[in-house]
Amino acid sequence: MKKLALSLAGAAFAAGALFAVPAAAQFAKVEDAIKYRKAAFTIMGANMGRLSAMARGDRPFDAAVAQAAARTVDMAGHLPWEAFVPNSAAGDTRLKPEGLANAAEVKAAADKMQAETAKLVTAAASLDTLRTQLGAVGASCKACHDKFRKD
Amino acid sequence: MKKLALSLAGAAFAAGALFAVPAAAQFAKVEDAIKYRKAAFTIMGANMGRLSAMARGDRPFDAAVAQAAARTVDMAGHLPWEAFVPNSAAGDTRLKPEGLANAAEVKAAADKMQAETAKLVTAAASLDTLRTQLGAVGASCKACHDKFRKD
Repeated sequence: MKKLALSLAGAAFAAGALFAVPAAAQFAKVEDAIKYRKAAFTIMGANMGRLSAMARGDRPFDAAVAQAAARTVDMAGHLPWEAFVPNSAAGDTRLKPEGLANAAEVKAAADKMQAETAKLVTAAASLDTLRTQLGAVGASCKACHDKFRKD
Repeated sequence: MKKLALSLAGAAFAAGALFAVPAAAQFAKVEDAIKYRKAAFTIMGANMGRLSAMARGDRPFDAAVAQAAARTVDMAGHLPWEAFVPNSAAGDTRLKPEGLANAAEVKAAADKMQAETAKLVTAAASLDTLRTQLGAVGASCKACHDKFRKD
């Protein structure tokens, strides 16, 4: 059973869609899952911030820097979801309990977000396309935050 | 000057070797750099832990899970270095001041580590090769930790 669960986890991870895997499969403690999740969002947020600063004109646009940041956003955007484990909406986290209770809805939101971040790397090659796609990514982030993240 | 610094940062980032870029280029505050650095190491550490558990036989070996973890280790291993910014060896961090004072040595250690993590993805396809390469990666981590990280 444990072997089966891990195999399924592997297949799901490979597909970028790890959800509802028992905490024990990947994290020894709930606190570890929360820390991992927050670390992934920290990486995403910092790189979204760089891209936003370029989009706003607060720092000069540089395609190489922008595309590197976009790649990191896209990569880190695949990590947090396996860490939405049972009992992880308490403690040092802003996740609302609704984010665990509505796993299918969170998964759909994550899928949507990943579809948008996948396009961000190419879009970051020019300022105009970056601005447009960054808006789409930001909207996909916000949709989930508004519902499932505490202020 | 600012534009030049950012262009250089882009080129260096693309080459996986971002060092000695002014904090202002990527992080608004030193605390943000420390948080980013720690987030990247958290992602690395969790995935190294999964691989180690498989190598030790504490969890079943699964090539898909192992290779996904290896990819994440390799990716996250490129992130912390730009966050070794001035004054970031104080506060909520285990970085010793020597880690900032000896930037060239840290860069060499990071390069070595990245060379090893690059081989980890292929190695993770089988348990035997995973064990060997995980040892090499772990040694490259430890070399830097022993010198530049507080206990």
